[in-house]
Amino acid sequence: MKIYKKAILPVGFKASAVASGIKRANKLDVALFYSDVVAKSACLFTTNTMPAAPILVNRRCLKNNKQFRAIIVNSGNANCFTGKQGLIDAEGTVRALARALGIANKSILVASTGIIGKRMPSLKIKKAIPVLARGLSASGMSKAKIAIMTTDTFAKEITVKFNIGGKIVTICGIAKGAGMIAPKMATMLVFILTDADIAQKALDKALKSCTDRSFNCVTVDGCMSTNDSVMVLANGKAKNALIDTGKNFDVFVKALNIVCLELAKMITKDAEGATKFIQINVTGAKNLEEARKVGLSIANSSLFKTAMYGENPNFGRIVASVGASGVAVKEKDLKMEVSPLYKKEIVVNVDINRGKSCVTVYTSDLTPRYVKINAEYN
Amino acid sequence: MKIYKKAILPVGFKASAVASGIKRANKLDVALFYSDVVAKSACLFTTNTMPAAPILVNRRCLKNNKQFRAIIVNSGNANCFTGKQGLIDAEGTVRALARALGIANKSILVASTGIIGKRMPSLKIKKAIPVLARGLSASGMSKAKIAIMTTDTFAKEITVKFNIGGKIVTICGIAKGAGMIAPKMATMLVFILTDADIAQKALDKALKSCTDRSFNCVTVDGCMSTNDSVMVLANGKAKNALIDTGKNFDVFVKALNIVCLELAKMITKDAEGATKFIQINVTGAKNLEEARKVGLSIANSSLFKTAMYGENPNFGRIVASVGASGVAVKEKDLKMEVSPLYKKEIVVNVDINRGKSCVTVYTSDLTPRYVKINAEYN
Repeated sequence: MKIYKKAILPVGFKASAVASGIKRANKLDVALFYSDVVAKSACLFTTNTMPAAPILVNRRCLKNNKQFRAIIVNSGNANCFTGKQGLIDAEGTVRALARALGIANKSILVASTGIIGKRMPSLKIKKAIPVLARGLSASGMSKAKIAIMTTDTFAKEITVKFNIGGKIVTICGIAKGAGMIAPKMATMLVFILTDADIAQKALDKALKSCTDRSFNCVTVDGCMSTNDSVMVLANGKAKNALIDTGKNFDVFVKALNIVCLELAKMITKDAEGATKFIQINVTGAKNLEEARKVGLSIANSSLFKTAMYGENPNFGRIVASVGASGVAVKEKDLKMEVSPLYKKEIVVNVDINRGKSCVTVYTSDLTPRYVKINAEYN
Repeated sequence: MKIYKKAILPVGFKASAVASGIKRANKLDVALFYSDVVAKSACLFTTNTMPAAPILVNRRCLKNNKQFRAIIVNSGNANCFTGKQGLIDAEGTVRALARALGIANKSILVASTGIIGKRMPSLKIKKAIPVLARGLSASGMSKAKIAIMTTDTFAKEITVKFNIGGKIVTICGIAKGAGMIAPKMATMLVFILTDADIAQKALDKALKSCTDRSFNCVTVDGCMSTNDSVMVLANGKAKNALIDTGKNFDVFVKALNIVCLELAKMITKDAEGATKFIQINVTGAKNLEEARKVGLSIANSSLFKTAMYGENPNFGRIVASVGASGVAVKEKDLKMEVSPLYKKEIVVNVDINRGKSCVTVYTSDLTPRYVKINAEYN
């Protein structure tokens, strides 16, 4: 298994990006991912009850169909709380792209990120689509990974290559994160492309299991987005023996897990205004849910996060957060350890001594700069 | 019904305060409230599963007894996560006070607030207790209200007087708030003294109902304290006809509600680092619980709070918070109104159009100063 800290497109995928004018200053703001052949998919969306229009469009499409050719993504506008017009705009984007690529509407997934409650400048996107389609190339990822960013300060990208029966399989993932990051289902935009040949059920199962301990274990500000999506396309172009169960499935999950976990960590490291990367290891829980409850209660505590920012060993705030989680930890059973606070990466170990489950939750500190960025963002 | 913006002790109550040395710079840090006669009580405590030692001591005492003579409170040390020693220290305080006042141990309630995880300097408190007992006076509230403060910048106090069958009844309340304020049961220290003669069941019911729409509707930082307590003592010295049900109960609840709501608002106004006082009116909910869920989801959103601080009309963050509450509000049903943001007091109206319940939730903005205060507090 080889890990590359950059996005390398798997066999049969292309990408491209353009500056459509949604963002100012001629910044890249629309990205396209494209598979030469039909790809299986697995998608997870936000559980927010005010989902954005593209999520509604995708959900409707996924009812009858799990095979796709392309994903189109824009940044700068979330197309959320935009009513029927938002749906019309998202569907219009899909139709225009289908025409430009010569594929069916139902072969396209769509995602948006940015400001909520403003109408999509869909004319700008429609104008950009032919350019986007013409621009597709095997090296397009270098621009596409930039085009999906909002307040991110660096592109989040990773590739894992591994061997199945002599065939090299590639899994490549990119993500946008930065703010409104909290753990319920997926919590950001994540696009994963693989040339693996894998059974539909196995793909679904693999994504669910990898997300549980990666994207669902990350929190920046406890704020759940309306646009969260994790999308995987698997086009089979690696020509490996079909991955279904057993050893090959385990290898695939291991590789996908690296992709998800590394992207989740990058998202946390690039949290708005953050100066610390904090890893909270919860052990001794009765089950994963309980472990995550305790970990996230700590990770979402503004008081804990400000203490970490201030390099202030106020461990009472960890105690209060454990208690606020609702998990009935006994005071005498709670053991805590915190690594030196002057470092950029901090490890918090919390043992609640109730069982054998454990989890690692990732978060950042709460800083005056987080407040400043979000006081001004519009 | 007359409202006074200061603490006026009801008939038969005395108070006092001393600087015991728990806090530096000779600051007042222990307060005592005392009733000349046995008083009925109603108490609500935090639901945090890591409650402080004084809460455990009170709970044990309340199992067999709801009548009290005194409440002793210290600031500067929460006596939480202090194990068996913490219990010994809290019980020692109770015993020493019982001796000094010549009353039974079981007639005393105890409360602490301050840093978590440090042993109580109980020798200092024991030394202070005789002075505290000797200092009891009808004007002692002026110092006692200061002694319970931690990072509060002003004392929270209110008195309501009303007439029951020709007798004047007084309800007086003081509170400490500032940080670690979130709504699950009581969320701060609140002491309410009244000379009303009221049936035990009526007192319990009145406190529960008043807390539901006051202290349980306030959030500063979503962090639930280990020491939250609301304590009411009612000593009957007003000699009114016993309040039980009917009109007299309604008048009592109305007065108690003013006390609770005004204290809750003062706590919010004095939130750590706050520059805005924000009132969120949720209407059109199916029931109180649903209304509060939506209101608190908005009030606890760091993104909403930073937008308020920045006077930034980023209403998408309200939409995202409504959706994150889990209440299945339909996009077309959601109506929002926000008063001008340049003002110090902001009103947010959110109608979710599902039913007839409503609630008002109180919160503050999230500011760089909140981060600074809590990065340094220890």
